[in-house]
Amino acid sequence: MNDLARTERTRIRRLHERGRYDIATARAILDAGWLCHIAYVIDGTPYATPTMYWREGDRVYWHGSSASKMLRGQKGGGEVCFTVTHVDALVLARSGFHHSARYRSLMLIGRPEMVEDEAEKDRMLGTFIDRLWPGRNAALRPPTPQELKATAIMGMDIDEGAAKISSGPPADDEEDYDLPVWAGLQPVITSFGEPVPCPRLKPGTALPDYLRSGD
Amino acid sequence: MNDLARTERTRIRRLHERGRYDIATARAILDAGWLCHIAYVIDGTPYATPTMYWREGDRVYWHGSSASKMLRGQKGGGEVCFTVTHVDALVLARSGFHHSARYRSLMLIGRPEMVEDEAEKDRMLGTFIDRLWPGRNAALRPPTPQELKATAIMGMDIDEGAAKISSGPPADDEEDYDLPVWAGLQPVITSFGEPVPCPRLKPGTALPDYLRSGD
Repeated sequence: MNDLARTERTRIRRLHERGRYDIATARAILDAGWLCHIAYVIDGTPYATPTMYWREGDRVYWHGSSASKMLRGQKGGGEVCFTVTHVDALVLARSGFHHSARYRSLMLIGRPEMVEDEAEKDRMLGTFIDRLWPGRNAALRPPTPQELKATAIMGMDIDEGAAKISSGPPADDEEDYDLPVWAGLQPVITSFGEPVPCPRLKPGTALPDYLRSGD
Repeated sequence: MNDLARTERTRIRRLHERGRYDIATARAILDAGWLCHIAYVIDGTPYATPTMYWREGDRVYWHGSSASKMLRGQKGGGEVCFTVTHVDALVLARSGFHHSARYRSLMLIGRPEMVEDEAEKDRMLGTFIDRLWPGRNAALRPPTPQELKATAIMGMDIDEGAAKISSGPPADDEEDYDLPVWAGLQPVITSFGEPVPCPRLKPGTALPDYLRSGD
């Protein structure tokens, strides 16, 4: 239940009024998505790798193959930056300079730890599935010991970091508001499309409720 | 017109059949989006920062405030990782283990250079606007010298890196295909919503053609 630690390296300096450090905002940004980008360093080279994530309490988790370069690189205990970005709109202003985006983002810095306990990994992977599709995990066969072993889970506290939120109409220079240029927001919408069944779906298998569109 | 340099640090090792190194694939992934995440290091800490980008020929560009931490951090000549990710679908498999995502991603590593020439910056920012909204730049007032000075543009060759493409139906273990579990793809769709005019829009300003939905 702690807010984000606002350190010299994470507090928002430029457009600082967009900075948010309360845990409720951090959670809301996390719970609105499932794709993050993680920055980490291997042999001096920075990498930004996309991966899926989930939240439990005030920790974030991501997973992958135990053999992946990213997860092997993170095992060493080095710091990573975990970033989630939701773009809500593009901003068309009256001057090129004030074109911008409306977004909610969260950046966390920390040292991820690997989840070692196999039973705990089993439970957590189920949580991840159910978070996306409530109730689905109970319908799946349990993971085998080999599958659990091949899956690495990294976790990191929601601790040091900052959220940044940009919202509202274009902010133009006062003397530009009289220009006859269309200005406003172009909303960016991310949604799920109609499910596409596997060609080898067992005949008679019904589409689960959690995949039905809300009509 | 060179393909991507497949170095030890960028070639795709795991699921290597998903790796693509041809320039046409790299361009297509870049031209399908406008949001990237850039990893860079300041004082030993890695950061992953979201920003918008555009492509000209076989270089990628991004911009920001000349005062931004990210761009100041990149001026030093250090390496960055530029990553673009399009998630096309979530994959619901018959076992938790084979749940996955379908995506197109591109990762480039390089040392960005700052564009210094003001006339060139002016031209490039217009290109960026027109890339999103063809023809819009000609309707905007020109940037002022102060605005150009306050805007930093970084560019980097499309050179060392890798694209990664995952597509197709779920890939389950052969013995799982008989399970009565729904399996398939849940498409992820990113689209633009209806434009929202600025409350201070000059009366009589028509919605430009490039913002009309294709109906």
